[in-house]
Amino acid sequence: MSEPSIFVLNCLNSPKATLKPLPLEQVRVDGYLGSYLKKAIEVTIPSQYELLENTGRIDNFRRASGKIKTDFQGYFFNDSDVYKWVEGCSYSLLYVEEEQREKLQSMLNRVIEEIVAAQDEDGYLNTFFTFEKKSQRWTDLANMHELYCAGHLIQAAIAHYRVTGERKLLEAAIRFADHIDGVFGPSKKRGTSGHPEIEMALVELFRETKDPKYLSLANYFVLERGNGFAGGREYTVDHKPFLQLEEMTGHAVRMLYLCCGATDVYLETGQSDFFDTLSSLWENMATKKMYVTGGVGSRYEGEAFGEVYELPNRRAYAETCAAIANFMWNYRMLLVTADGKFADLMEQVLYNGLLSGVSIDGKHYFYVNPLEDFGKHKRQEWFKCACCSTNLARFLPSLPSYIYTKSDNAIWVHLYEQSDCETFIAGKKVKLTQTTDYPISGLVEMTLTVEQPVRFDLMLRKPSWAEDVQIRINNEQVKSEIQKGYIRISREWDRTNRIQLSIPMNVRLIESHPYVRENVNKVALFRGPILFCAEHVDNPNIDVLTFAVDPRSGFEVQLKNDPVLGKTLFIQGSGHHVLTHEQLYKEYFAGKERKSGGITLVPYHLWANREAGPMVVWLDLR
Amino acid sequence: MSEPSIFVLNCLNSPKATLKPLPLEQVRVDGYLGSYLKKAIEVTIPSQYELLENTGRIDNFRRASGKIKTDFQGYFFNDSDVYKWVEGCSYSLLYVEEEQREKLQSMLNRVIEEIVAAQDEDGYLNTFFTFEKKSQRWTDLANMHELYCAGHLIQAAIAHYRVTGERKLLEAAIRFADHIDGVFGPSKKRGTSGHPEIEMALVELFRETKDPKYLSLANYFVLERGNGFAGGREYTVDHKPFLQLEEMTGHAVRMLYLCCGATDVYLETGQSDFFDTLSSLWENMATKKMYVTGGVGSRYEGEAFGEVYELPNRRAYAETCAAIANFMWNYRMLLVTADGKFADLMEQVLYNGLLSGVSIDGKHYFYVNPLEDFGKHKRQEWFKCACCSTNLARFLPSLPSYIYTKSDNAIWVHLYEQSDCETFIAGKKVKLTQTTDYPISGLVEMTLTVEQPVRFDLMLRKPSWAEDVQIRINNEQVKSEIQKGYIRISREWDRTNRIQLSIPMNVRLIESHPYVRENVNKVALFRGPILFCAEHVDNPNIDVLTFAVDPRSGFEVQLKNDPVLGKTLFIQGSGHHVLTHEQLYKEYFAGKERKSGGITLVPYHLWANREAGPMVVWLDLR
Repeated sequence: MSEPSIFVLNCLNSPKATLKPLPLEQVRVDGYLGSYLKKAIEVTIPSQYELLENTGRIDNFRRASGKIKTDFQGYFFNDSDVYKWVEGCSYSLLYVEEEQREKLQSMLNRVIEEIVAAQDEDGYLNTFFTFEKKSQRWTDLANMHELYCAGHLIQAAIAHYRVTGERKLLEAAIRFADHIDGVFGPSKKRGTSGHPEIEMALVELFRETKDPKYLSLANYFVLERGNGFAGGREYTVDHKPFLQLEEMTGHAVRMLYLCCGATDVYLETGQSDFFDTLSSLWENMATKKMYVTGGVGSRYEGEAFGEVYELPNRRAYAETCAAIANFMWNYRMLLVTADGKFADLMEQVLYNGLLSGVSIDGKHYFYVNPLEDFGKHKRQEWFKCACCSTNLARFLPSLPSYIYTKSDNAIWVHLYEQSDCETFIAGKKVKLTQTTDYPISGLVEMTLTVEQPVRFDLMLRKPSWAEDVQIRINNEQVKSEIQKGYIRISREWDRTNRIQLSIPMNVRLIESHPYVRENVNKVALFRGPILFCAEHVDNPNIDVLTFAVDPRSGFEVQLKNDPVLGKTLFIQGSGHHVLTHEQLYKEYFAGKERKSGGITLVPYHLWANREAGPMVVWLDLR
Repeated sequence: MSEPSIFVLNCLNSPKATLKPLPLEQVRVDGYLGSYLKKAIEVTIPSQYELLENTGRIDNFRRASGKIKTDFQGYFFNDSDVYKWVEGCSYSLLYVEEEQREKLQSMLNRVIEEIVAAQDEDGYLNTFFTFEKKSQRWTDLANMHELYCAGHLIQAAIAHYRVTGERKLLEAAIRFADHIDGVFGPSKKRGTSGHPEIEMALVELFRETKDPKYLSLANYFVLERGNGFAGGREYTVDHKPFLQLEEMTGHAVRMLYLCCGATDVYLETGQSDFFDTLSSLWENMATKKMYVTGGVGSRYEGEAFGEVYELPNRRAYAETCAAIANFMWNYRMLLVTADGKFADLMEQVLYNGLLSGVSIDGKHYFYVNPLEDFGKHKRQEWFKCACCSTNLARFLPSLPSYIYTKSDNAIWVHLYEQSDCETFIAGKKVKLTQTTDYPISGLVEMTLTVEQPVRFDLMLRKPSWAEDVQIRINNEQVKSEIQKGYIRISREWDRTNRIQLSIPMNVRLIESHPYVRENVNKVALFRGPILFCAEHVDNPNIDVLTFAVDPRSGFEVQLKNDPVLGKTLFIQGSGHHVLTHEQLYKEYFAGKERKSGGITLVPYHLWANREAGPMVVWLDLR
């Protein structure tokens, strides 16, 4: 591990990557997002290790290697949970002190040993398709998730190798990838996965090994869709060839993972029709099929995207995995384009529909993230299908990747967060520090230090929701040029530079397109990137479900120390709630019985951490 | 066929039936509902005969009896479609002239011959469980619909016997019922059906044959629920014992058929806990889980009831079968209680969420009946699962049953419709004629003729939506007493009496309970029993989806002769529509760009008969 090399996504040499990530070991995160990172390492990762053991997920590997005699336990895709945990635990090693590192390392070693022992001699590795099920391997690509699990194994192995330098798991993954490459292809067995994921993994394996066969196989898997090898259904995104897709449909996570994989292929191959397809799919999602939380997937049935503007609040599915997938795809599109609209969406989903998936204690989760509830939706310790919990376990430890990137002659700041990074720009060592309690305040104080004066651009994201971002450099107000959502500061930098950013954090009332019929005459409240909601627990004397907020009354923002939530922003507004009656339908009467009063809102991603009760994001308008 | 005896439901001797139906042959229907009856007989029944043949549904019987060698075709429950058609075709014989009767009779005879030939020697009859599948009979009660199909056979056979006096099909049905009685029971094989239906059928078979074993078996099947024999799931209403049900949940048609069957059992046995359960379930549905169309079933997933107040418009499921089932249940509850609230609901669902299921041409259908659409929902000629189409084929010919009933000393009018009936009250022959174009106007002129002066009550339903119903008898205004939703006119009647009813037909704006969050600040328009909607075809220059109606502007009602719909009421209102923008979410702005104008509405049940386009029931409020 001589030179920094721990990338979540290593597109340093990708021809279509306008932006290049900084390696994890060159970024330290210590603010609002840092608290989630810390909790993931201290609570989520260790507690999930226990759960993986207790639910038989690791025993499935022991069974496959013949160490124990039991039945296969749980779902046929449970291997993937173990792999996702390995990926997250590997990143976690980077951020901890020795004692904790040894603990994590020892869990990790135990798990990896079981994984590797379960691999077949021919390289195949999936604990479900063993013994009597061996003959069924690769016979049901539409449903059985073998390539999906393989993808997670490859990603875990790359992460583990990059962090530790140990090749054991990586070699197992390569053996499996080679096995897959031996089986599938245009002139071999034709096929593609019912659940995309392998595509991203193979491109990353190409980036790691430089072996083009993995890229070529990823490209093949993307282009083989629509030929019926993955069931031929919209659900599995096999209803049409990839390049003919025009609308985000079917299973949301499958669709988004495919978009991630296809973007990865594009980063390497630069096939322009890939980018055209991806761009129009993104427009379709962002302008017609996304919740204001950044969550996606409107339907329980098929965990699917809905029709355009079909965005029910109470029955939103908005799976946590889909939020993570949405973030991952936007990150990739950002790397390609350096367009702030993708970073805007990363921020929107991160602070709202993604962080909502994990509880404040770091060990309870939401699988489904509704925007309205009558009081029944509660966070769970685990799910029989644990994809969301383990996806959080791998995603949260990767957070430092997403704050900064660099390009030929610039350093880019995408997310504001108490943090620092070091890198080389134009051959010169550059250190950038953000001091801020963002998103609590919009003040960000940066220090940029360079070895010796050097000219390059500092690109600071201007959130699309912020009217007017003020910048002072070394105490002087500067007028900035905006380039695709970034404030470009182009100058020869002194050794030490002080950059002060002031992002307005006023409360914003947001409305939906009028075709989102459920949200007509309703508003959602944002402050900065944070979406707020009204929970019963903060409003015991009013009915949050029928509360109509007065947009003219003004809003007060308070920072309080909540015993459960910690330092938390609350918004207070006023309006009235409607007194309810018994009848389901009655003659319309304009002069309804109303009770005036105030309402308290809390960040949406923190809801349901205290007591269960009704919650609402889209408030009626007075 | 000496004395009138053709009842759809014969509860003349049922101890708990407050009201008794009139036999079909004593009622003639010739108005708005009559036009649906006529179309059913002239178009629906003959066209469905062709479809039953063309889709292999009748061939399945030929195959089972060994007449042809083919594979079983379609769904395992397709026999039920044939039975429902037989039931509807049997009733139809009553209303037609000789030539048409012979045509229908010959179709019917052919079909019945095939059914009877397919019966096993032991009485079992289901064309799916034949040959190699014979050993699987009664092994999967949760899913395989054997008892459901048996129920429809029994109902068809009773209808056919009552209309024609021929016993062939009835005897086959009795043999199967006896077979079932030999298999199931507390001390035999325990079980109950995953899809209720057999319960209603067995009670009617008890009413026809007087054999108490059928009633006892129906009672057993109701009470055996909740013990896991029908899958133990909410979906199959087997999650709890029937008497512990408190909420309408699970598959809507299953749940409602169970309620119908349990009401039938109650009509005969008078077990008060049955009635208590049914009453509280009804309250739950009518006050928390029903669309304003009278349709039910909020979810595509599981074709199920939703949570309380979960009533999405665009993704309403509101299956046509569920509307029919809701009507059937309310009819049974009305027979028990003589409470107008049940007749109100019969009327509400009939004129809206039920008649919406069949097109104006009588041969296109809706399976799903949304309350809002973006232009994709179209009527179909047939469905692979044809339950709704064939349910309409049996329901529409039964319409004359629901207009009138009688009780010990009263004749009851439940639905207003150009029609007449004859019956005996207090031993005297009574003839009642309604002359009206209801629901187009609210004027109903009745003639009541009796052989000789006699005292009894005339009970006229006062629709709950009508503020003030005016009544004149023999040209004199009378003050009427209201009894559970009925205007009671108690007097000694002259030989000929003229009763004039004037029901106000003003346009009514209806609002939802504020917990139906999608309908907040929205209204639905009714005129009389008819719910209206706005279709694009009548409003080519405005956007019906964003139209906000001005409740103060007044509404104009016009009767027009539409080339497709015929004589149809349209409502015109005014307001504005909002000009749409591209963004999915944007800063709230009170002064939206609006365009004032008018809007034309058409009866909801007639929508999608002309060209496809957006449709909306719940209009925004200006």
